[in-house]
Amino acid sequence: MIGWDHDKNTFDNISPLDHRYSVNDPEFYETISGYLSESAVLNYQLKVEEILVKVLAQRGICSKAVYKEVQQACEEVLPEEIYDEEARTRHNIRALVNCIRRRISDEAKPFVHWTATSYDIVDTANSLRYKKFVEDVLYPLLVELQQELIKIARREKNTLQIGRTHGQHAEPVTFGFAVAEYVDRLGHQMLKLKKAASELRGKLSGAVGAYNAVSLFLDDPEVFEKEVLNELGLKPAPISTQIVEPEFMLDYMHSINACFGIIANFSDDMRHLQRSEINEVGEYFAEEQVGSSTMPHKRNPINYENIKSMWKAFMPQMFTLYMDQISEHQRDLTNSASSRFFPCAVAGLALSLKRLIPVCSRLGIDREQMKKNFELNSQFIIAEPLYILLASMGHPDAHEEVRRLTLEAQESESDLLTLMKRKDNLRKYLEGLSDEQEQILKNPEKYTGIASKKTEQVCELWQKKLGLKSL
Amino acid sequence: MIGWDHDKNTFDNISPLDHRYSVNDPEFYETISGYLSESAVLNYQLKVEEILVKVLAQRGICSKAVYKEVQQACEEVLPEEIYDEEARTRHNIRALVNCIRRRISDEAKPFVHWTATSYDIVDTANSLRYKKFVEDVLYPLLVELQQELIKIARREKNTLQIGRTHGQHAEPVTFGFAVAEYVDRLGHQMLKLKKAASELRGKLSGAVGAYNAVSLFLDDPEVFEKEVLNELGLKPAPISTQIVEPEFMLDYMHSINACFGIIANFSDDMRHLQRSEINEVGEYFAEEQVGSSTMPHKRNPINYENIKSMWKAFMPQMFTLYMDQISEHQRDLTNSASSRFFPCAVAGLALSLKRLIPVCSRLGIDREQMKKNFELNSQFIIAEPLYILLASMGHPDAHEEVRRLTLEAQESESDLLTLMKRKDNLRKYLEGLSDEQEQILKNPEKYTGIASKKTEQVCELWQKKLGLKSL
Amino acid sequence: MIGWDHDKNTFDNISPLDHRYSVNDPEFYETISGYLSESAVLNYQLKVEEILVKVLAQRGICSKAVYKEVQQACEEVLPEEIYDEEARTRHNIRALVNCIRRRISDEAKPFVHWTATSYDIVDTANSLRYKKFVEDVLYPLLVELQQELIKIARREKNTLQIGRTHGQHAEPVTFGFAVAEYVDRLGHQMLKLKKAASELRGKLSGAVGAYNAVSLFLDDPEVFEKEVLNELGLKPAPISTQIVEPEFMLDYMHSINACFGIIANFSDDMRHLQRSEINEVGEYFAEEQVGSSTMPHKRNPINYENIKSMWKAFMPQMFTLYMDQISEHQRDLTNSASSRFFPCAVAGLALSLKRLIPVCSRLGIDREQMKKNFELNSQFIIAEPLYILLASMGHPDAHEEVRRLTLEAQESESDLLTLMKRKDNLRKYLEGLSDEQEQILKNPEKYTGIASKKTEQVCELWQKKLGLKSL
Amino acid sequence: MIGWDHDKNTFDNISPLDHRYSVNDPEFYETISGYLSESAVLNYQLKVEEILVKVLAQRGICSKAVYKEVQQACEEVLPEEIYDEEARTRHNIRALVNCIRRRISDEAKPFVHWTATSYDIVDTANSLRYKKFVEDVLYPLLVELQQELIKIARREKNTLQIGRTHGQHAEPVTFGFAVAEYVDRLGHQMLKLKKAASELRGKLSGAVGAYNAVSLFLDDPEVFEKEVLNELGLKPAPISTQIVEPEFMLDYMHSINACFGIIANFSDDMRHLQRSEINEVGEYFAEEQVGSSTMPHKRNPINYENIKSMWKAFMPQMFTLYMDQISEHQRDLTNSASSRFFPCAVAGLALSLKRLIPVCSRLGIDREQMKKNFELNSQFIIAEPLYILLASMGHPDAHEEVRRLTLEAQESESDLLTLMKRKDNLRKYLEGLSDEQEQILKNPEKYTGIASKKTEQVCELWQKKLGLKSL
Repeated sequence: MIGWDHDKNTFDNISPLDHRYSVNDPEFYETISGYLSESAVLNYQLKVEEILVKVLAQRGICSKAVYKEVQQACEEVLPEEIYDEEARTRHNIRALVNCIRRRISDEAKPFVHWTATSYDIVDTANSLRYKKFVEDVLYPLLVELQQELIKIARREKNTLQIGRTHGQHAEPVTFGFAVAEYVDRLGHQMLKLKKAASELRGKLSGAVGAYNAVSLFLDDPEVFEKEVLNELGLKPAPISTQIVEPEFMLDYMHSINACFGIIANFSDDMRHLQRSEINEVGEYFAEEQVGSSTMPHKRNPINYENIKSMWKAFMPQMFTLYMDQISEHQRDLTNSASSRFFPCAVAGLALSLKRLIPVCSRLGIDREQMKKNFELNSQFIIAEPLYILLASMGHPDAHEEVRRLTLEAQESESDLLTLMKRKDNLRKYLEGLSDEQEQILKNPEKYTGIASKKTEQVCELWQKKLGLKSL
Repeated sequence: MIGWDHDKNTFDNISPLDHRYSVNDPEFYETISGYLSESAVLNYQLKVEEILVKVLAQRGICSKAVYKEVQQACEEVLPEEIYDEEARTRHNIRALVNCIRRRISDEAKPFVHWTATSYDIVDTANSLRYKKFVEDVLYPLLVELQQELIKIARREKNTLQIGRTHGQHAEPVTFGFAVAEYVDRLGHQMLKLKKAASELRGKLSGAVGAYNAVSLFLDDPEVFEKEVLNELGLKPAPISTQIVEPEFMLDYMHSINACFGIIANFSDDMRHLQRSEINEVGEYFAEEQVGSSTMPHKRNPINYENIKSMWKAFMPQMFTLYMDQISEHQRDLTNSASSRFFPCAVAGLALSLKRLIPVCSRLGIDREQMKKNFELNSQFIIAEPLYILLASMGHPDAHEEVRRLTLEAQESESDLLTLMKRKDNLRKYLEGLSDEQEQILKNPEKYTGIASKKTEQVCELWQKKLGLKSL
Repeated sequence: MIGWDHDKNTFDNISPLDHRYSVNDPEFYETISGYLSESAVLNYQLKVEEILVKVLAQRGICSKAVYKEVQQACEEVLPEEIYDEEARTRHNIRALVNCIRRRISDEAKPFVHWTATSYDIVDTANSLRYKKFVEDVLYPLLVELQQELIKIARREKNTLQIGRTHGQHAEPVTFGFAVAEYVDRLGHQMLKLKKAASELRGKLSGAVGAYNAVSLFLDDPEVFEKEVLNELGLKPAPISTQIVEPEFMLDYMHSINACFGIIANFSDDMRHLQRSEINEVGEYFAEEQVGSSTMPHKRNPINYENIKSMWKAFMPQMFTLYMDQISEHQRDLTNSASSRFFPCAVAGLALSLKRLIPVCSRLGIDREQMKKNFELNSQFIIAEPLYILLASMGHPDAHEEVRRLTLEAQESESDLLTLMKRKDNLRKYLEGLSDEQEQILKNPEKYTGIASKKTEQVCELWQKKLGLKSL
Repeated sequence: MIGWDHDKNTFDNISPLDHRYSVNDPEFYETISGYLSESAVLNYQLKVEEILVKVLAQRGICSKAVYKEVQQACEEVLPEEIYDEEARTRHNIRALVNCIRRRISDEAKPFVHWTATSYDIVDTANSLRYKKFVEDVLYPLLVELQQELIKIARREKNTLQIGRTHGQHAEPVTFGFAVAEYVDRLGHQMLKLKKAASELRGKLSGAVGAYNAVSLFLDDPEVFEKEVLNELGLKPAPISTQIVEPEFMLDYMHSINACFGIIANFSDDMRHLQRSEINEVGEYFAEEQVGSSTMPHKRNPINYENIKSMWKAFMPQMFTLYMDQISEHQRDLTNSASSRFFPCAVAGLALSLKRLIPVCSRLGIDREQMKKNFELNSQFIIAEPLYILLASMGHPDAHEEVRRLTLEAQESESDLLTLMKRKDNLRKYLEGLSDEQEQILKNPEKYTGIASKKTEQVCELWQKKLGLKSL
């Protein structure tokens, strides 16, 4: 492999993450690659090796000069070099260590990888990069999306829309209220993802987790471990085998998945609202076109489709993590290859968010069409509050009464209230109505409960909880 | 269906939960059935309907007498009756409401199911029973298991065992230390499950979540909702559609799954330690038999196998929940049948815990066999600390030196230390060793790092965190 | 457990299969219970034990009288008795054998379970009941459904419907053609399921699959195995360990799953066609009501929703089977409990088919509404064939030309063909059109390709392949 | 994006398929990349476009010269160019078509993509490359593996090994017999995979599957479709919507998964047989080292671990395919992104086979250790046939008798047969034994049934069925 060319044509890659979804936005791909690629793996491992020596220097176990040497070496080593060395040694971390050692003096050599086992480095580096990826990339993207959603929810908090259950017209809501549901769902999971990321742990407890090797030299191996991890911004695992307890990463990926499911649901809704017959929202409507009738023939919801599709591609990866909970004794290695693929779902969510944010910011909303759809069945919508009001005022058989009235109204082409006024047995109930109740019966579009107020409340809540700037 | 016989032979059931795993321990099955059966579903729904009227009475919207009527009715209604009514009305909650209404006066009737939509009742009742199931059954079982594990960990904290990675002998640990890993993993997820259960939410916000109907009568529908849920010990959903946001239940089931994975891993370890060639633990060893050599021919780890098998049966159910995150608009009903199956995985974990606890309490540990297995490769175990010590004292090629020494030791049948003393270039390193380091080289069984101390620490930590009584 | 009451209230069961979905249609539940319940498990196991002795008698190893004794005993033993015995012996097959043995003479006893291992009985009995369940229940249900689908497809083969891609109006099809797609998909998987069922295998090769015990007595143990399985209508496993190779059952469950996915997709389509805005089909439309305007307010697609929901509940079970492919050495027992749950998904499909068939037979189709939806965008539909025709006749920039024409048509409110006739550069193309091509441009509803013919073809094909009677 | 550099450093890729697992064996990666990369996607799509015109020429619809132009153009177009064009047009197939068209004369242009919809090209190209990948790469690899397994099975058909169930010593088999089980399992699935690959279908039926556009010109659109697909070696879909019925690909991926599960199970067995205490096989044992005692300290089963780990990484992808069975109406696009990831699991299996083959060919087998492990419990192994023989000869309580004898034998340190001869009530049974039966009781290692013969049979069967050359 020595002399092998490490560049290759993007399109010769197998995973769409590394061809199609890497060329849409090369800059963003480079950003996520900084955490999720093999280069990133190795760079973070080098960082851990470096910091290990830094703490040795702090403790006076080695000199500051030794640390400087190691620090410089760690900055210089390239992935290609490590892989060439691994081709020789057949051991990835040994290869990385050799690449550092060949750059430094004999005096410094013993301090590289001091008493560590490979997975002290591997698991610590992974926790670090997954944690930082959320802090630096994913969470900020979620914040951006959340702000877009809040913007829509607030702007449309009074935009009448028929609520749909079973795909059938039910009772009215507002479009902003429907979006506020997603604001809340996303808000909760954002906090959980942040928490899960901050809970990822490092370790420096050796091959079987009992600090066997480091205890040969130190009386306080756990303090030493804490010092190293502290420098990296990580907490130690409470106890470990060769590897960190799998549940920290499991919870992290569950949060990734939960966030993914929320945006997939949102996208599914937006997708359906673009159906030819419904036509309430549009991906590419510019703001000033809202409500325009000059729509081109076909405007496919390709971005929303893409997000649901990415969710289908990556959600099942969670299954790998559940299976990887099981590792025999102090560890079998059957989680090694599989865990190398964890970045895929993480990248999948990042790419989906990056795509969704601008699509949301340019979401076209056709308020006229929403109203038109609402009116399709508005006659029947009155029937519901009417029946509830009659029942509450003691009508013995309100549901049946209203059903018959509705039929009569249809035949006579008059409205329910007019009909009721003509009937002796019903007129009295009308007189018992409050003004507000009467208004709703006359104007079913007012039958939206506290949709608008709730929208405002939810937006306010999450702006505060997430510390978002007002827009 | 009227007149249909609602009793049936247990063995005519299809799910093993309802035949095989219900007859092993009928009393326990009855306990979990009180939360997870269809009777439980209906009883909890009746409870919610009752409390709704209780709060109406508290607010003076109806009289106390009305509430008494409803309360009594709710206590009387039987599942059979509801199902017979549903066979007529084709609507499950309408059927339940009718069964209450037919028992009460005309004056009381309007207050039953007052302004509620079916899922106000369904989701609230579900959150309540899943929450209480953790509080009353699952968490106490987890506590019991945790106490057994802590007991083993502490008792065996100094029991030498070879640590295994890749199924290969690595460095020594203690058996207690190996168990302490599970104490810690389980401890974390116990707290998470408790948290997830306490976060399950109710709702009383109507058919599309905007409090449309209740707003016809009340200015403070959210306060009213809070009052009802408060009586039930639940918090309201921050916002809902027809249904509560799915992520509360998703997180709950993730915790169920995470706990299941941990006990499956533990069981897998115990299973492998019972292999004929390893033979370090046994399911049915009575305490006084420990270390006895008169084992019968075959002692299958059937209980540990069962637990891993149950995990395989139920873990995939998580994917139903991930799919159920997606519900169109204010809700499609494609989560209705699927969510009726959620109790299965929950019951699966409960049954597995119930089986595992006594098996753990009677876990036989063969300390002699552990020692014998350790000694199989103890020679090679010294090689590792020796190489680390030489390297740390500046030996330029410690790894290769020790490798050659090992071969020589094998050929000459002498031990490594004796050999080293004979060699001029190595003798000096030996002199640099501390007493403790020398002791480890002479007695590889001492090379267990801080295994014992860590075990104690972890047990102490979780006894405190979980408020367990000392044993 | 002795004296324990084996009857229990249906509603105290945990799995919805054994409460809710067992009471909808008790007769059908009883039918499937005859293959998928624990009673069925035991009855099939007794059958295998019986047939084993039958072949011994045929070979003269035991007498016919012995077989008669065993046969009678096997018919008498009840599940309750076996479970009571298992409570004593702690071994399920040993218990079953004891229950037979206690009914027969000492002379007959040695021939019961002759040289067999438990899983010879368990796996053979399972293969038999799963095979027969397809033959007797599932396949006939699939045939019924297929006939309903063919009936619809043929009846509606000329019913114009707008084809939808991305939820957007695309090009026209016919409703029958859309259904024919499902006829074909289902047809393929019906044959595969039948094949997979017929491929399920039995075994009689002993504890580790090498015919160790039976070889003590017979020179032709494989012939003996074949004779026994032949009596049961099964083929032997080509080779086995303690258990039959898992892939036969894996393929069976994959076919179950594939069928389930097809009816879930069909149901999803029917569900969406019932959306308030689309409204092309209805679950409960009686034939004579088609197109009626007296629809009640809300007609939820609850049956189609249920089928998709059941699919979500059971599809993930496939992953249990994929995990159960892995069993250590001659077998670990971690597939024992998990495989007891396989009947759940099988029952899930049966219940879903049983529900779907009558719903399909009464499917209401609103042809007027289909036409109305088609006309929403029929103007744009002409644009496509027009562009294709122009291009084919050599127009250098047909796509752009038609795009401009479309805009002009909208502004001038005239139609595309009229406009084209007025334009010198386009008129000549119109003259080149065949009559048929011109007809399509004038009547976009004719632009359905060979939808009708293909529908007929597909229906014909599957009626023949499946040997269905003409309707 | 124009001018963007399409080369990138391998290690900057995110999927391990495109970094780590692409550099182990760059030549093999290049091979699979020829079917599974984005370059491959585009090349196969260009091929379909080319052949479409070839058939037009054959039919005389366009000239041979036109076809030559198109053929040359299709050979020249590079992925980079298509992506640059897509960046402009926002449509991938339109971009590909444009890249062809810009290379050809105006006369030729109308014939490119003639009446086709994008997915006529996409699905046909995918079916073709997945089909050819099995034919050219996967199936040959499976054949290679199968030959290695057959070689081992035959060579070791008489190598005594204790059979293990529950991880406990059960009855003896031979190592070859244990391997033959995998020969058979793999054989079946190889045939199924080959069949599934040959069943992948193409289509040329247009945007909604009704041949709408092509019917404007041809009376026999299905014949035309068949001609094009025939040139590509594919069969047409019996009926399609915008896309080919998903079950053809679903069955293909199921077979991929089933094969993966089998080699994962085999690897798991080999992994466990390498446990320090069992130690029966070794990954790197050269043939001449068998039984050598100079083993280095730790020889990890990293390759077998890797294969199980890759299975855990890719098996869950099957879930994506099950979800992708559902596509709304004539198609929603939510299977577009997800199906782009299908090559991952396919590549995963190929990489795993490529790794497994040489590891199998160099599998070290320690026959002495196998014998030693067998002897650990050989005393107890006799007990089983003894009990069976006594029972068959009419001993009324054989099981209990032998249990007591076993205890006595242990205490008196004599063997079972000697003891029996001393007992009046048992001696007679011994006399009834055939020579062969007596031999087995004296030599439990002979109690292997027909293990050897069955091994030979299975190897013979699959060599014939798969047409393998004898080795």
